[in-house]
Amino acid sequence: MSGAVPSQAAKAPLGGGVSVGSETFSFAPWSSGHRAAIEHALSRWVVAQAPGGLGEAMRYAVLDGGKRLRPLLVMAASEAVDGNPVAALRAACAVELIHAYSLVHDDMPCMDNDVLRRGKPTVHVKYGQALALLAGDALQALAFELLTPEGDEVPGVQQAALCRLLARAAGHAGMAGGQAIDLASIGRSLSEEELRQMHRLKTGALLQGSVMMGAACGTPDRRAADALSAYGAAMGLAFQVVDDVLDVTADSGTLGKTAGKDAAADKPTYVSLLGLDRSRAYAQELLQQARTALAGSGLEDTRALLALAAMVVNRDN
Amino acid sequence: MSGAVPSQAAKAPLGGGVSVGSETFSFAPWSSGHRAAIEHALSRWVVAQAPGGLGEAMRYAVLDGGKRLRPLLVMAASEAVDGNPVAALRAACAVELIHAYSLVHDDMPCMDNDVLRRGKPTVHVKYGQALALLAGDALQALAFELLTPEGDEVPGVQQAALCRLLARAAGHAGMAGGQAIDLASIGRSLSEEELRQMHRLKTGALLQGSVMMGAACGTPDRRAADALSAYGAAMGLAFQVVDDVLDVTADSGTLGKTAGKDAAADKPTYVSLLGLDRSRAYAQELLQQARTALAGSGLEDTRALLALAAMVVNRDN
Repeated sequence: MSGAVPSQAAKAPLGGGVSVGSETFSFAPWSSGHRAAIEHALSRWVVAQAPGGLGEAMRYAVLDGGKRLRPLLVMAASEAVDGNPVAALRAACAVELIHAYSLVHDDMPCMDNDVLRRGKPTVHVKYGQALALLAGDALQALAFELLTPEGDEVPGVQQAALCRLLARAAGHAGMAGGQAIDLASIGRSLSEEELRQMHRLKTGALLQGSVMMGAACGTPDRRAADALSAYGAAMGLAFQVVDDVLDVTADSGTLGKTAGKDAAADKPTYVSLLGLDRSRAYAQELLQQARTALAGSGLEDTRALLALAAMVVNRDN
Repeated sequence: MSGAVPSQAAKAPLGGGVSVGSETFSFAPWSSGHRAAIEHALSRWVVAQAPGGLGEAMRYAVLDGGKRLRPLLVMAASEAVDGNPVAALRAACAVELIHAYSLVHDDMPCMDNDVLRRGKPTVHVKYGQALALLAGDALQALAFELLTPEGDEVPGVQQAALCRLLARAAGHAGMAGGQAIDLASIGRSLSEEELRQMHRLKTGALLQGSVMMGAACGTPDRRAADALSAYGAAMGLAFQVVDDVLDVTADSGTLGKTAGKDAAADKPTYVSLLGLDRSRAYAQELLQQARTALAGSGLEDTRALLALAAMVVNRDN
């Protein structure tokens, strides 16, 4: 899909104007403003000059595409805890680089062998497998470089906390671990619990990590931190349930990637386990869990987080 | 090669007992003691329990192999600046994980397509390409996780500095960038300057980064930091020059990997550019540069660093 502000925002229950107290919160300008800042920062930080064509491949993988959901979760969580905006923008971009690298590697022939992503040829199709492999590797390193700037705009302790959260979310006990379960599961049937565990790691860890990194840009109390963690966990799972539904119901043009590929690969999904209707109901239940968590957070302004949750569950691509 | 203490240490000019003042420094027990600590820590931190067979593949990639040169450089530099030993052990292991991941990805069919590493089947041969790709990715994330422990044994500012150095050394302006130049250079002739630039990034950045990370475990003054940086740069280049020489002169059994593969792939090397004799002389010159740098460092005890430099240049595998 394009990087434009999605029409989903307007359709989402909380995507329009929401009044809290005397202020009106409008998600569309909030998200488009932050998206512009994120695009600008990514374009500045993912430099074209990296040698051997590497910079070009990295930029192709990252720029001008994606909903930027993870960065928006970072920004929304950071704002909810009155976080350091410099740290938040860096964390937002770092998370997106991890997401982008995982897509590049996931699309490679030895993994999902996908040739289409966001309506464009995948990185290995355009630049060859070797450069795609390196571009993914370099994007992961760059994520940690973004989190550790020199100078004192982001205190060292905060830099370290952000690196810790991102490394855990991306690694063997997070995203990479979930992908390994996914690999091992092809052609097998999983229980709902196993499926939940796979997705909790594969996509949930980085989504929840985004929320926790946003929180780490401030100093939330324990209650708020726990609530944000619960919100992030529900969002992570909801995202995957909706993804599984869309893999069945949407066409490739709308998705910007190959539809129906999970079924074709005989991969276990929520739809194959629960069916379409129960999967949709489950996504709504998770949305409600996310709202409940925020309601108990003690945080004053969670409107952007609420709107993002609605966007995740009600999206059509 | 095995993880045993190399016989090189005894042959190296500074590898035996070296007297500085009234103390005698003996490299063999120093290095074998540190290697044992590093093996133990790696075995503890690279957990087998990671799901989907990922942990097993990660351990296979990391454990029971390698000279552990980079970790030893971290430990030696840290000791030279009286650094935090807890930070140093973590940094040593983190650097080795980055090195290990780069080998896993480098060996894959889309890159060097190597089937033998340290005398064993490479990771993708043993576990398949998809899991090899994920294991490499997860090892990189784990490196940053090791650098960012909770608790106060390693101060946050130090954690951040170590992450910054490692990310830069591993990423587009370091190792990954050098690999991209390497890819782009196959079948082309490079000038000595271009070759030096490629190797400065591809292998030099992580070797120099190891030294700088060791230094960041303490608080060296500017003179010492600059001297260690110059030492690291010379070591990084020397390592590659010797590698190029050994690719021509050693057999696969001694190397533990496929000999002669650079020439077979028509890759530019120091030997193809300078010839064998001048390459060997250049390695000795770089060793001398490393010694000169340390002599001007103002650091009291650089004996382990000196011994490691000699080991790098005089190794036979």
